[in-house]
Amino acid sequence: MSLPPRGFPEAEYRDRVARIQARMATADLDALLLTTEPEIRYVTGFLTRFWESPSRPWFVIVPASGEPIAVIPSIGSHLMGQTWVNDIRTWPSPHPTDDGISLLAEALSECTSDKARIGLPSGAETHLRLPLTAWADLQTRLTSCVFTDDANILRDVRMVKSEAEVAKIHHACQIANRAFARVPEIAGAGVPLDQVFRRFQSLCLDEGADWVSYLAGAAGIGGYGNVISPATDTPLAAGDVLMLDTGCVWDGYFCDFDRNFAISHASAETQSAHSQLRDATAAGFEAAKAGNTAADLWQAMARILDAGPEAGRLGHGLGMQLTEGMSLLPHDHTVLTPGMVLTLEPSVVTGPDRLIVAEENIVLTVEGANRLSDPAPEKMPILR
Amino acid sequence: MSLPPRGFPEAEYRDRVARIQARMATADLDALLLTTEPEIRYVTGFLTRFWESPSRPWFVIVPASGEPIAVIPSIGSHLMGQTWVNDIRTWPSPHPTDDGISLLAEALSECTSDKARIGLPSGAETHLRLPLTAWADLQTRLTSCVFTDDANILRDVRMVKSEAEVAKIHHACQIANRAFARVPEIAGAGVPLDQVFRRFQSLCLDEGADWVSYLAGAAGIGGYGNVISPATDTPLAAGDVLMLDTGCVWDGYFCDFDRNFAISHASAETQSAHSQLRDATAAGFEAAKAGNTAADLWQAMARILDAGPEAGRLGHGLGMQLTEGMSLLPHDHTVLTPGMVLTLEPSVVTGPDRLIVAEENIVLTVEGANRLSDPAPEKMPILR
Repeated sequence: MSLPPRGFPEAEYRDRVARIQARMATADLDALLLTTEPEIRYVTGFLTRFWESPSRPWFVIVPASGEPIAVIPSIGSHLMGQTWVNDIRTWPSPHPTDDGISLLAEALSECTSDKARIGLPSGAETHLRLPLTAWADLQTRLTSCVFTDDANILRDVRMVKSEAEVAKIHHACQIANRAFARVPEIAGAGVPLDQVFRRFQSLCLDEGADWVSYLAGAAGIGGYGNVISPATDTPLAAGDVLMLDTGCVWDGYFCDFDRNFAISHASAETQSAHSQLRDATAAGFEAAKAGNTAADLWQAMARILDAGPEAGRLGHGLGMQLTEGMSLLPHDHTVLTPGMVLTLEPSVVTGPDRLIVAEENIVLTVEGANRLSDPAPEKMPILR
Repeated sequence: MSLPPRGFPEAEYRDRVARIQARMATADLDALLLTTEPEIRYVTGFLTRFWESPSRPWFVIVPASGEPIAVIPSIGSHLMGQTWVNDIRTWPSPHPTDDGISLLAEALSECTSDKARIGLPSGAETHLRLPLTAWADLQTRLTSCVFTDDANILRDVRMVKSEAEVAKIHHACQIANRAFARVPEIAGAGVPLDQVFRRFQSLCLDEGADWVSYLAGAAGIGGYGNVISPATDTPLAAGDVLMLDTGCVWDGYFCDFDRNFAISHASAETQSAHSQLRDATAAGFEAAKAGNTAADLWQAMARILDAGPEAGRLGHGLGMQLTEGMSLLPHDHTVLTPGMVLTLEPSVVTGPDRLIVAEENIVLTVEGANRLSDPAPEKMPILR
């Protein structure tokens, strides 16, 4: 299968910044200040796993017009120099008393006027990746500025993906599809769950993942207690339902879907739950049309599951993060738009403290939705 | 080799909380509010990769006396219920207007008095994992409280590891040791760097890593441009120095060290740089004695490298995060104490835009330091 190109052409970054700046004008913002990995990568293309280290803050400023300014630790200058960003300002970090804050304040002052309104991503799923003491220091240095929220600009702009972004997510999904198809090679009755987890991550790498940022799962008779646990060393046993849920990353973009497997045999109840989940994702897929809302998708799936609001979130946006953007919940009225990438994630309760969860990835188009993950098989596969 | 036990006995968590509360009394704090993965895990034992999802906030309160209180999304109640924490309060998250904030405010009010001083980790390497709008909402709900910094209590307490913690880090290091020993199986002239990265992560998993949260590296003639880049598909070539730097995780604890390999042959300059780096880590190891400071270790290594402050950070603390705690820098006067785990990470410039970096992991004891990573071989290994 063909590999999408890595990175994006400069035109894509210019388009992203233009869309952000158009909305900044509407929201009367003189600059955006970005501090987290996906925000900074979205604007610059700066891709590194070095964010795993909390030791240094990183900043990107999007001015009201013109190109973004990177204010970053000098350890990042070589890599940032390979992106389209021209204005890169560095300091030796970590620094005990001024870890980039004076340099950042200077850059913000330069590109804004007095009484500037500086927007920071402040809504759901965001945070300020900056020690609170440094944040207080920045506000003290720029008392004439107003720090305010970003009017959800970053969230909204990121939510609609370009074709090149969709291609990367699709590629990540295909990697996971192939890895899931090979689960019979690595799992079966008697194999400890932690060994399955290790081997499954290797399958994802073998099939082309750059790295495996997320793997959760569980196994239990007829279902499992939760979907966020790390693995124990308990061996898989006949009657177990094994679930693996992975976020493989390719070129900085995630897939996020799961598969269920029955160990040795599947009860009628298990296969019936599996069918119901397939019907629910099919109903979600049908409802995934431009103009419908996130709540409409939730309703379409909840109807099949005969579930009320207690069913909780039945899917979410997906892209540069494992979960991002909208939530499929009764109160999320985000209007579906071509280019949005979603997970459909219904669950059924199969007993006390027992559930089974399905998940698929789709992309909205002008004519409905396309599947990014291959649909789960009609019957739950049985591992011997 | 024997596997350390997973998790910690309840006594270890009680001891951690007791040490935190003793310092809270000194700092006149009525409660600590924790929001990030390592902070919450340190106090509760809550271990999950679900933090990869930014969609939900999580809170743990450490009161001035008594047990911690978890205020968390209901999706986490089953897993938190398996920890030693008894007081677990949940809400259905995500919620668009009150994502746990009223529940958190109530819990904070309950366990403190009016005009309570609530500490939040606020210094270097910390952040508040909470949308700024939710943070403003919490402050509005608790106007009678004073939110202040945590006097670096979390950082200081975490910096000194228990024997059980050191055993986990040592185990992660041994996994990486074995994976590095197998690099000749997967890398050599003509192999693209991205394939080396994939295969190396699989080796780490095969040798027992739970997951591989960090892998960076590079390859270039006689050295490389930076140490934080993801892999390109450029094939390794004769004369290249290949560096792989990994943070493998075992039971939530990291290793963090690298190894360099020469492709086909190593020049005299390359071997000389390798020797100098070995001498520098040996000097750092010698200086790693209780009573010395982080700055002393920096000086000991800088002397061998004939380097000034421009050499930057030459190592750092290590544990539940890839980098945490002290920095080996001339201005970090943290006093070394038995139980501290460190990396020694000297680098030498080998040409314009070219450097070679070494890294080892050690633990401070009452009688000097012990190695956690096997020392790099005397000569840089050559891959055919």
